[in-house]
Amino acid sequence: MKPCRVALLGTGTVGSGVVELLRSRAAEIAAAAGRPVELAAVAELDAARAKAAGVPAKIVTDDAAALARREDIDLVVELVGGTTAAREFVLAALAAGKPVVTANKALLAEHGEEVWAAAAKGNVPVAFEASVCGGIPLLLSLQSLLAANRLRAVVGIVNGTTNYILSAMTGRGASFEEALRAAQEAGYAEADPSLDVDGLDSAHKLAILARLAFGAGGAFDRIAVEGVREVTPEDVHHAREMGCVVKLLAVARRTEAGLELRVAPTLIPESHPLAAVGGVYNAVAIEADAAGRLMFYGRGAGREPTASAVCADIALVARGAAHVPAPGADGAPVLDAGETVTRFLLRFGVRDEHGVLGRIATALGEERVSIESVIQKEKRPDGVVPVVLLTHPAREKAVRAALARIEPESFVAEATRLLRAEMD
Amino acid sequence: MKPCRVALLGTGTVGSGVVELLRSRAAEIAAAAGRPVELAAVAELDAARAKAAGVPAKIVTDDAAALARREDIDLVVELVGGTTAAREFVLAALAAGKPVVTANKALLAEHGEEVWAAAAKGNVPVAFEASVCGGIPLLLSLQSLLAANRLRAVVGIVNGTTNYILSAMTGRGASFEEALRAAQEAGYAEADPSLDVDGLDSAHKLAILARLAFGAGGAFDRIAVEGVREVTPEDVHHAREMGCVVKLLAVARRTEAGLELRVAPTLIPESHPLAAVGGVYNAVAIEADAAGRLMFYGRGAGREPTASAVCADIALVARGAAHVPAPGADGAPVLDAGETVTRFLLRFGVRDEHGVLGRIATALGEERVSIESVIQKEKRPDGVVPVVLLTHPAREKAVRAALARIEPESFVAEATRLLRAEMD
Repeated sequence: MKPCRVALLGTGTVGSGVVELLRSRAAEIAAAAGRPVELAAVAELDAARAKAAGVPAKIVTDDAAALARREDIDLVVELVGGTTAAREFVLAALAAGKPVVTANKALLAEHGEEVWAAAAKGNVPVAFEASVCGGIPLLLSLQSLLAANRLRAVVGIVNGTTNYILSAMTGRGASFEEALRAAQEAGYAEADPSLDVDGLDSAHKLAILARLAFGAGGAFDRIAVEGVREVTPEDVHHAREMGCVVKLLAVARRTEAGLELRVAPTLIPESHPLAAVGGVYNAVAIEADAAGRLMFYGRGAGREPTASAVCADIALVARGAAHVPAPGADGAPVLDAGETVTRFLLRFGVRDEHGVLGRIATALGEERVSIESVIQKEKRPDGVVPVVLLTHPAREKAVRAALARIEPESFVAEATRLLRAEMD
Repeated sequence: MKPCRVALLGTGTVGSGVVELLRSRAAEIAAAAGRPVELAAVAELDAARAKAAGVPAKIVTDDAAALARREDIDLVVELVGGTTAAREFVLAALAAGKPVVTANKALLAEHGEEVWAAAAKGNVPVAFEASVCGGIPLLLSLQSLLAANRLRAVVGIVNGTTNYILSAMTGRGASFEEALRAAQEAGYAEADPSLDVDGLDSAHKLAILARLAFGAGGAFDRIAVEGVREVTPEDVHHAREMGCVVKLLAVARRTEAGLELRVAPTLIPESHPLAAVGGVYNAVAIEADAAGRLMFYGRGAGREPTASAVCADIALVARGAAHVPAPGADGAPVLDAGETVTRFLLRFGVRDEHGVLGRIATALGEERVSIESVIQKEKRPDGVVPVVLLTHPAREKAVRAALARIEPESFVAEATRLLRAEMD
């Protein structure tokens, strides 16, 4: 059978992994694709890097844009990264009618609608399994569920670096700074860790998941994002007292009022399937009306897991089984952050005065925020008494309004800590 | 576009769920299928049951064999169950060149090679997601992983009834009989529970997984099967003392010597991703060389989850993306049970005599079974002292040989309990 001729753009970490798998697993990939898959050409500006990846010099070019539309190419694999050149190459390939496989979450989160429109216009498939949770066949599973299910929620730990950090803070009581340093030493965090630590990477992935699960096109800018930089050992300790752990959750949930989209450090019960997800692992829980609650767990990043997902997509496209994205999705409207409803853990640092708890409870009550449980702690050496409480599900803006009443009070000794909690 | 005309054989629990989803989710299923999916005909011997499922009388026939090969049908969905009539209908459909969707694990486990051969002969796809772990898109994910991964192991909790029973025994110290009764009252166990409780259902699913993951065709009869009937509260208690829980695991593992295939109650560490899988949930862990360790979790049975999987398969076949099974798989040879290597938990009931532990350890050592840890318990009221030990990985026949030396000894007061342990 006629081989599928692949053009690979970029031979960095993942790209070199793809080159290796295309060679070492040629027979298996051909079996899955229903025809041979041939690495026909590679675009790489750094010739030494292409050579180190084992690519024969005669198939290397430095003109990715030209390669993306070259006539003898059946499929373009974009592993350049970033949102500028990659966008140009992907749109060039689609305009030339060539299917695209990409691992580029930033591109799809920030310019997804442009990509989907181009794909739909040319009736060309785009496969992007590797863009979310690397080694887990998550998007494939999600797409399969969509045939017969209305999804209620997609809730996941989609960034391995921050999960490693929070796991270290939970397991051995490390501070954020200590845990970050450990992650950097283990090679799980970049020298500049902000893309991971501040939640942007999770938000990229959430945008892709929300588009697929709920048709929320162009929602990336509407995601409320909070990273893990502010998480303290005290947060982790109070979570444990409530029978919970703190995880950086990416949440997309359909409610009657609209779609909740957020990335935030969140308490979940120790018995929740996501609570046991430790280290750099990722996991995504899906609530579907017919299939029920599901969870998918695995390695979210790294050379081999990501290359594995790229090769699975190459096989899927090569055998003609990949989806052509639907353009112009405008699913449920995205809720403003203030309108979303969750439980909150609030920690007040108060002076040891009579009736303080009553005044906090009254202010919350007047904003219709009801309290599920309260732990009043021992006075700290500095004389401040921590009051930790968990609310019932409440609208965020009501909680903020109550805090605006409480914080100016003279009994408040320090800034109030607010964390979300997903208890179901 | 031309609709896909579906013939449904059987309107029992799952079949009626499929009828409902094909109606209520017609638009979504059509979108996933790339064309409308039409319930064209239904075979059901019990007309009242078809009517109760909401099937118009004019499309009901009692001749499933004729329907399976009828010219105007594009796809046959077999939900008759059993291995006699269902086998006839499936082979008839395949011989007539019609793709088949089935949830029939017994048929595929016991007559799979015949089905695959017929499908390959006619180049016709067979989709069977619903046969293993109902609502989880597990087989789809497994197939996707196979493109670029060599799998090392597939280890799962694939039967909800027994997991419910073991969870109740772990959570509230119930006996097997009490837990079984609770499962029956909750509707999770049949009046005659033996298919679940004795491990046969798990073995059916393991055979299907082993065929897909390792090419082990016709391996069902080679699976060593032990159910949960003999699991006692004492087992659960001793597991906990080792930091473990007892789960009914279905294990397929590739070793240098061959393929390990077994269903058995097994200790796993509380930190293992499968340990947190409670109640009727199913989960399957996969070890893949490129993608790493993965886990898939969800509802393994029930009307809606299973019907969801059937409808996803219908859409997959209708858009031409389902696989044609490869015939004649003869993967790695299946190891004899005695040749497999795992850790063992052994519990001896001994008389309170001097030097007993030494004699047990010596017998094990002479068979080259080494001991990882020992707990010698308080003497029971009946004068028997339980000695509980965990071995390092050992060949089962070596452990059996050591037991054959130990059991005739005069210090042995009762039958020795043997449980496997998967600690990695």
